[in-house]
Amino acid sequence: MSKWTLTYDGFDPDAEQLREALCTLGNGYFATRGAAPEAEAGPVHYPGTYVAGLYNRLVTEVGGRDIVNEDLVNVPNWLPLRFRISGESWFNIADVAIDEYRQELDLRQGILTRLFTFEDDRGRRTRVAQRRFVHMGNPHVAGLQTTFLPENWSGRLEVLSAIDGRVTNAGVARYRKLNSQHLTPLETGFPDADTMYLQVETNQSRVRVALSGRTSVRLNGETVPIDLTPVQEPGFVAHDLEFDVSEGRGITVEKVVTLFTSRDRAISEPGFESRSWIGRLGSFDELLRTHILAWDLLWRRFHLDSAADEYEAMVLNVHSFHLLQTVSKHTIDLDVGVPARGWHGEAYRGHIFWDELFIFPYLNLHLPDLTRALLLYRYRRLPEARWAAVQEGLDGALYPWQSGSSGREESQIVHLNPESGRWLPDNSRLQRHINIAVAYNVWQYYQTTEDVAFLAYFGAEMLVEIARLLASLATYNKALDRYEILGVMGPDEYHDAYPDATEPGLNNNAYTNVMAAWVLCRARDALALVSEFRRDELTEKLHIQLEELERWEEIGQKMRVAFHDDGIISQFEGYGDLEEFDWSGYAKKYGDIQRLDRILEAEGDSPNRYKLSKQADVLMLFYLLSTEELQAVFERMGYQLDGEAIRRNIDYYDQRTSHGSTLSRIVTAWVLARSDRRRSWESFRQALVSDVADIQGGTTPEGIHLGAMAGTVDLVQRGFTGIETREDTLWLDPSIPEELGELRFEIRYRGHVLDFHITPEQLTVATHPGHAHPVRLGIRDQIIDVQAGTTETVSL
Amino acid sequence: MSKWTLTYDGFDPDAEQLREALCTLGNGYFATRGAAPEAEAGPVHYPGTYVAGLYNRLVTEVGGRDIVNEDLVNVPNWLPLRFRISGESWFNIADVAIDEYRQELDLRQGILTRLFTFEDDRGRRTRVAQRRFVHMGNPHVAGLQTTFLPENWSGRLEVLSAIDGRVTNAGVARYRKLNSQHLTPLETGFPDADTMYLQVETNQSRVRVALSGRTSVRLNGETVPIDLTPVQEPGFVAHDLEFDVSEGRGITVEKVVTLFTSRDRAISEPGFESRSWIGRLGSFDELLRTHILAWDLLWRRFHLDSAADEYEAMVLNVHSFHLLQTVSKHTIDLDVGVPARGWHGEAYRGHIFWDELFIFPYLNLHLPDLTRALLLYRYRRLPEARWAAVQEGLDGALYPWQSGSSGREESQIVHLNPESGRWLPDNSRLQRHINIAVAYNVWQYYQTTEDVAFLAYFGAEMLVEIARLLASLATYNKALDRYEILGVMGPDEYHDAYPDATEPGLNNNAYTNVMAAWVLCRARDALALVSEFRRDELTEKLHIQLEELERWEEIGQKMRVAFHDDGIISQFEGYGDLEEFDWSGYAKKYGDIQRLDRILEAEGDSPNRYKLSKQADVLMLFYLLSTEELQAVFERMGYQLDGEAIRRNIDYYDQRTSHGSTLSRIVTAWVLARSDRRRSWESFRQALVSDVADIQGGTTPEGIHLGAMAGTVDLVQRGFTGIETREDTLWLDPSIPEELGELRFEIRYRGHVLDFHITPEQLTVATHPGHAHPVRLGIRDQIIDVQAGTTETVSL
Repeated sequence: MSKWTLTYDGFDPDAEQLREALCTLGNGYFATRGAAPEAEAGPVHYPGTYVAGLYNRLVTEVGGRDIVNEDLVNVPNWLPLRFRISGESWFNIADVAIDEYRQELDLRQGILTRLFTFEDDRGRRTRVAQRRFVHMGNPHVAGLQTTFLPENWSGRLEVLSAIDGRVTNAGVARYRKLNSQHLTPLETGFPDADTMYLQVETNQSRVRVALSGRTSVRLNGETVPIDLTPVQEPGFVAHDLEFDVSEGRGITVEKVVTLFTSRDRAISEPGFESRSWIGRLGSFDELLRTHILAWDLLWRRFHLDSAADEYEAMVLNVHSFHLLQTVSKHTIDLDVGVPARGWHGEAYRGHIFWDELFIFPYLNLHLPDLTRALLLYRYRRLPEARWAAVQEGLDGALYPWQSGSSGREESQIVHLNPESGRWLPDNSRLQRHINIAVAYNVWQYYQTTEDVAFLAYFGAEMLVEIARLLASLATYNKALDRYEILGVMGPDEYHDAYPDATEPGLNNNAYTNVMAAWVLCRARDALALVSEFRRDELTEKLHIQLEELERWEEIGQKMRVAFHDDGIISQFEGYGDLEEFDWSGYAKKYGDIQRLDRILEAEGDSPNRYKLSKQADVLMLFYLLSTEELQAVFERMGYQLDGEAIRRNIDYYDQRTSHGSTLSRIVTAWVLARSDRRRSWESFRQALVSDVADIQGGTTPEGIHLGAMAGTVDLVQRGFTGIETREDTLWLDPSIPEELGELRFEIRYRGHVLDFHITPEQLTVATHPGHAHPVRLGIRDQIIDVQAGTTETVSL
Repeated sequence: MSKWTLTYDGFDPDAEQLREALCTLGNGYFATRGAAPEAEAGPVHYPGTYVAGLYNRLVTEVGGRDIVNEDLVNVPNWLPLRFRISGESWFNIADVAIDEYRQELDLRQGILTRLFTFEDDRGRRTRVAQRRFVHMGNPHVAGLQTTFLPENWSGRLEVLSAIDGRVTNAGVARYRKLNSQHLTPLETGFPDADTMYLQVETNQSRVRVALSGRTSVRLNGETVPIDLTPVQEPGFVAHDLEFDVSEGRGITVEKVVTLFTSRDRAISEPGFESRSWIGRLGSFDELLRTHILAWDLLWRRFHLDSAADEYEAMVLNVHSFHLLQTVSKHTIDLDVGVPARGWHGEAYRGHIFWDELFIFPYLNLHLPDLTRALLLYRYRRLPEARWAAVQEGLDGALYPWQSGSSGREESQIVHLNPESGRWLPDNSRLQRHINIAVAYNVWQYYQTTEDVAFLAYFGAEMLVEIARLLASLATYNKALDRYEILGVMGPDEYHDAYPDATEPGLNNNAYTNVMAAWVLCRARDALALVSEFRRDELTEKLHIQLEELERWEEIGQKMRVAFHDDGIISQFEGYGDLEEFDWSGYAKKYGDIQRLDRILEAEGDSPNRYKLSKQADVLMLFYLLSTEELQAVFERMGYQLDGEAIRRNIDYYDQRTSHGSTLSRIVTAWVLARSDRRRSWESFRQALVSDVADIQGGTTPEGIHLGAMAGTVDLVQRGFTGIETREDTLWLDPSIPEELGELRFEIRYRGHVLDFHITPEQLTVATHPGHAHPVRLGIRDQIIDVQAGTTETVSL
């Protein structure tokens, strides 16, 4: 085992879909899964070559609702490579005896290798080694290399190297009754003797995807001249190759494919580009070399070294790896959001939720241009969000809880409880707090980068429009002289209404109200930060009135937070009146009680009756804001919140949360990092393995949980180090778990590059030379200005 | 007359195409021309409603060459609006008596108005007032409002409001033998009772364009309910309306159209978006209000006030106006280059040349984000440029002289001399100096903005690859111990070979060689400016070797410049040996001798034999670099260049230039601004009127000359003020022509906003507050650091 390799030994058809998800390759432009060659496991057409996900833009139906659009469709399979001993039937892993079988994902180099030896019924043993990459340097290229070594026979081998546009969306079992056909074949052909070519179009969004491929054979490092027999069917194109093989001599088949879409920039027409570029590329080995270099440059920015055990270090690397191939440098010039499940599977159909809240603060510190590009994805959808607000009779812009390619609302109206088989109303769209996530990220990006130009031209406008939305959600309660936000849902999806209420929604969700007060301040801050000239422009363009700013100020000061049990922040008004839940009884009865909503509904009961949360809700406050910042917000509202109260709140809610969301354990580990190290580490460990061990029992094969992956890495980087970016200072307050021992990492902050080495005893920071101004660090209570090009050590 | 209005009185069918070009409306996303209603002038299908140009990406054939692609196609006509008195034939301006006729382009508000009164053969007089806009705030929207006032009759009026996809590329007479059909109709329809809808696809590039339109009738400010009769044919969709009109009462027809393309971001599918948004827009008046506000905000940045006479002030505003609607704020999120002829006509087919050299330095000082976006257009085409270098056996990246959508070479191989009727070899692709223009603009953008992030992630890579190209173009001449660049063309297109040579190309073009030496320095500077971390990344990614940097240094020091006549820089080696040209003899014989190339070729002669230039070539050096900077470059190369020598060179070449390019007079006016004010002003005046007066005799109707338009405004802004951005200082050296009297303008420099007021006696600069650091100004020899928020006055 190595911290840079995810390894699976032995062939396991039952686990194949999970492995596929975890071994997905990508480069922020397209992604591909690499399953077992021709295994009849799973619903996949060409299992050896399954490709999942092209950046989000393309829908399937939602239960009980008409289709309007496509958001996630599969691109054509580019890797199909069948083989057989000439005259026999095509290789199928189910028909042969497998001797050795190993799958290795090289995280540092972005290469997936599969090695196996099989023996057929006539005793012929053949060793097969396969490597594949999706190029991290050139987003349009992928390659597959297969070496066949006949151990005890000689003869003739036939290979069918194909591009297959007949793929379906069939990766998620519960979606299979829905329409799964999203591609229409447009063209297949052979532009020259070496090249096969395919073009398809997505059905609704009409995005065209074109691929060209070349296949060659190499022996002893030399290319062997070979006849390529063209094969084509509608939506399918292939080259058939036959060649001699000899006992003990390896022979290699190399396949390189180019992929362009009609959404690409700097193109004439995608088919033309894919055909042009396939002839311009270097050899497989040359491409592999530049691919490895591109990964090497990425890891220089994103490495995170600790003294953790090898398994934990490997899983942290898996998480960074999958984050970096879902959103990467290539994403910067695309119009792409951050999908909840990566591009690793079809669950949630590529829709965009709030996961970016757990992802951008991490990216900000390493590749801020990437966060900027991902925030622009939101900015471009302001017109759609403004329209959504108009539709709801609200002001400003309303980003929807689940959104599709154009930024339109795509939250379900009903969802299926597989436990009861019932379709139930889905009120998740009442999670207006998604807008807080967008605003929070705009502010964090600015704090980390000091990118005033972004704030001036994009960020301030988003903050103003979200502040307007929140202000229009707030209603004045004259009796209390407080503002209230009524009829919403917080992050905790177990509670969508009061017990036995006829209308959905809850009042004064603490997370929403407190963060709304915070956002109202930040919107004013942003307007103060931009130049006078730009402020005037914004004021006119957005019709900002002085009375409006005063109203934000007043709402921010008089926002209502409900309390119960002497200092416990009520998750929402009335939470204190709910019944306590019989945790141990249900745990005994059901075992896995992460999805209590489904269990209770099936019993004819409802989580709305109980003090139980699917995931962190009040605790999110302690996750997003430091104690200092949170206390300031409460104080401004005229509430007290001392350290003791925070600890009591954390304990209270931690005991009442089922962690039915992968993000919840990260929040718990984060907020307990200083008060309960043991429990914090335990939560971290659970979050860490949630995908690699598929702890939710079958959700990972449908796509990894990107927020949780980024969140665990960020927990190490920011949570355990106490890194915060506020008040023009980079704050640190390390509390490194003994299991991690020490940390080494590099971050970017306001134009500085900083190398950190943190042990339990001391913190060393080395700043790179070249910046004219010093960087201001706040290490616990001590503020130091560090000149660029120097090293500082502080005892802890 | 007003400096904010371009007015044409009287209907003139002969001048209609020129007026159309000069009255084109646009918003950086799409452009539309507004010709006379149903006049049978010109080749236009629906003359009242001609739409030209969708951002560049879509071609026509080039004489003698196969079609490979489309770069400029027309979008469907969105404004067709026919009308007639019910039962009569459709209004045609040729059939009626026109009484009054006025066309007004409001430059400040971006509104084109046409007012006319006509009388039919039965004596019915009707007054028509038409206003149109292409929305500068919402790039997808355009509107047309037509008011009919029957002066002496009552009756019934019929209007046909259409969207027409049957447009052709027929705007340039000499292209008409080529294929002019570039759109394929895909869909027409009426998604609801109020809406008409059309979708087309471009033939080669397969870009889809979808439009939806609504038409309504208003009387006394109220909407009149009206029956809309749907009309559709392949590629054509319309609503037919009939309503009563009464003597002396105006009635208004309003048409609003939405346009989306498959290249847009934040969309599902363009048809879906156009149909959705047409129902979400406000009234014509509301749209007009936000359109005017958007223009108002633009003019705050771009205004340039002087005491020039009203006509000159108006033409300067026309130039800024057309620049701002060709490349505008909407361009920032598109993948668009700067087309030589705007989107105002079909000449040059939307191809990208070097015009940006005359445009970006102007934009940098007002909307640097726009230049950044336009430079990224070049950056995205680096892979194609690298491939072009490989094809020519050169290093680095070779941007082509004329490029199409993907950045591929689109320079003609042959061109037609209309004077002789002969197709001639076209060697213009040997203008390698286009690469110098790209590099120069990267550096200027950095100097003006101090945007190190751009330099680090995009600019340095472009500079390095262009430096490599130039270094590989240079060959060592051992006898002279000098580097030479052989077989190229300079900017002057009259010279493409030595007299009677069998191979094209000239040696040691002074402009190319001197600027190559300059670029080789700037590439090294850029690598020194980026962070160590990024420099390491670039070094590995681009395989930059120390020896390579040393070679650049050496070439920069030993580049050859040829001289003749004791200190005259030879335009190219051997220029001094050419014959003098008989200027007065030819002027007498031909009158207009701007295109001597065509005249001489028709005579069986060639400009290659003479000391005559189509346009500035050596003079470009004095235009791009200040005396100080140019002297430093020459000194580094071991050559002398004193002020006296510069003056002699300017005189020498000014006397030998025909100014057959609109850009040439700007260069002349610029370089003479301090030494020969009278001649400078004369050249400025000629450059200023070149489009409004169509001084090249018929080229403006095919599209305005964008470089010359921007260049004249920049001549006032930078040329006469002596503004330069170098060595981290904003330099000024005003020399305001007495015809301009004084100047007031606002610029952006490194995060500062600066208001300038310059008179012959003094310079006042007011800096906006908010910037932490002072701005460094160099006024003639005096360096001053000005704090943000203060005002400084300096006597001149």
